[in-house]
Amino acid sequence: MQKYYIGADIGGTTIKMAVITEQGSIHDKWEIPTNHEDNGERIPEEITVSLKEKLPQLNIRMSQVLGLGAGAPGFVDTEMGFVYQTVNIGWKDFDLAKILNKKTGLPIFVDNDANLAALGEKWKGSGEDADNLIAVTLGTGVGGGIVANGTVINGANGTGGEIGHITVIPSGGASCNCGKTGCLETIASATGIVRLAKEAIKRNPDSILSNYFSPDDPLTAKEVFDAAAEGDKEAKEVLAYVTDILGMTIANLAIACNPSKIVIGGGVSKAGEKLLIPLRETFDKYALPRTSEACEFAIAELGNDAGVIGGAFLVKQNI
Amino acid sequence: MQKYYIGADIGGTTIKMAVITEQGSIHDKWEIPTNHEDNGERIPEEITVSLKEKLPQLNIRMSQVLGLGAGAPGFVDTEMGFVYQTVNIGWKDFDLAKILNKKTGLPIFVDNDANLAALGEKWKGSGEDADNLIAVTLGTGVGGGIVANGTVINGANGTGGEIGHITVIPSGGASCNCGKTGCLETIASATGIVRLAKEAIKRNPDSILSNYFSPDDPLTAKEVFDAAAEGDKEAKEVLAYVTDILGMTIANLAIACNPSKIVIGGGVSKAGEKLLIPLRETFDKYALPRTSEACEFAIAELGNDAGVIGGAFLVKQNI
Repeated sequence: MQKYYIGADIGGTTIKMAVITEQGSIHDKWEIPTNHEDNGERIPEEITVSLKEKLPQLNIRMSQVLGLGAGAPGFVDTEMGFVYQTVNIGWKDFDLAKILNKKTGLPIFVDNDANLAALGEKWKGSGEDADNLIAVTLGTGVGGGIVANGTVINGANGTGGEIGHITVIPSGGASCNCGKTGCLETIASATGIVRLAKEAIKRNPDSILSNYFSPDDPLTAKEVFDAAAEGDKEAKEVLAYVTDILGMTIANLAIACNPSKIVIGGGVSKAGEKLLIPLRETFDKYALPRTSEACEFAIAELGNDAGVIGGAFLVKQNI
Repeated sequence: MQKYYIGADIGGTTIKMAVITEQGSIHDKWEIPTNHEDNGERIPEEITVSLKEKLPQLNIRMSQVLGLGAGAPGFVDTEMGFVYQTVNIGWKDFDLAKILNKKTGLPIFVDNDANLAALGEKWKGSGEDADNLIAVTLGTGVGGGIVANGTVINGANGTGGEIGHITVIPSGGASCNCGKTGCLETIASATGIVRLAKEAIKRNPDSILSNYFSPDDPLTAKEVFDAAAEGDKEAKEVLAYVTDILGMTIANLAIACNPSKIVIGGGVSKAGEKLLIPLRETFDKYALPRTSEACEFAIAELGNDAGVIGGAFLVKQNI
């Protein structure tokens, strides 16, 4: 009888859920809104109700489900499935695995959402099942996950893979949401790229880049890539600076972890080759030749499905 | 009947060998010279002969030995126990595990020597059996090993944990032996500290530091620490610069790997608290607060025994 995994990617706005086959393909997926009432305490019940409604529709019995892998937006004790704290949900010291297990009867495994996305890309995305992989997500912030020896590095208290908060400007860097300054996130996120581009526009108000920018139409990272493609000097300089710092940071991580795959995701990664080609060049400049030889760059493939597929993989790894 | 592990730490000058109990204490240890003839081809035979001579003296039969863990000074395929290349021994694509297994009949496991030392410190040294640990060795060069989820990160082609070659000076840094410039090793090794101190003496020939230095008596890293303890401004500046860069680099690694222990070894670590206290301060400046909370700094405890004890642990982990 066919068996299935359940993935649940719990975000600040929605919970993405999926029934996933043992082979890692999505049998069905759906979303429910994230209920913030009572500091998020109702979320496990709502996940359970939603799952118990969905399975009969798919002609799947609970006994066919091998387990549920959940991603939480915060710091997680993966051994206990315990959520220390979250950013967007009210959870603090929340015993997610135990509660979900009681309600569903399923084996439950929990990790940080960015770590699950890295596992998803490893298993079924552009990671091509690499045992050593670095995933970097360039969105509003910079997130990431590191897979070493086939398992994701969650670390001693759930902060493993917080790549966005690696210091890249030792002094005088821009303020980061984390309270530090000069984090990678202040440079290589969409927000960081836009900030640097606005500084460039101030320096040269006649640049092509400035045409993209008006008080009514806020600049986007995509427009910085577009302006660079049109030959705008300022946009090109901003992106050269960003890729130099990002390439060095990833090279330094690769020297430590020696991955065979580096997967770049998030909104900024939609620039595709325009990002990957210069990024690979700066990476090669800073990495050991042998480290470079071992690894390929790729754009993430799974998009919003990475988390639920990673959740399924987490179950697969642990049962 | 008591069982034992064998550790063999193969270096450029000597091979350190030990019989280690299941509990991880050294039952006996000895050294044999490293035979460089025929590009190191005779080494496996000499390890085997030495072991077969030693065991009867200790009243131990080969059947009591659970396996042999060997450290090689180079890049290793840990799955196959295959040595890609070494720095000080002539090995290139050398099938160490297979050859040693044929000769001894024992299960053989191989890893890079710095990785084994990290595993040794994890198991029986100041690592206190931490599942997430970073070991940094500050000697002539800078070496290291990273343990994540209980296992050492060897990586896709054996270059994992090459912490010394993380780029810390993006442009205009000193040349490193690896061919790059601005590596951590050019700053935080004993050699790096002496280089920076000599530059400081040039800038201020009247410093206390300059008294330590003459053409007949080359400066040492220890003397730079001594001069700083005497209040010498230049020496203090050099060490502040070194600890700032080293602290930031370790903090960045810790943000990625979230260790509970950071173990500092090698000759420079003999400075003890004089090194650890300022290093911890700069680390805390650059790390996420939650990453800092999770981890303790310690000086490595096992010295030259770390490799053989790590070898024993490698066997323990794999059989």
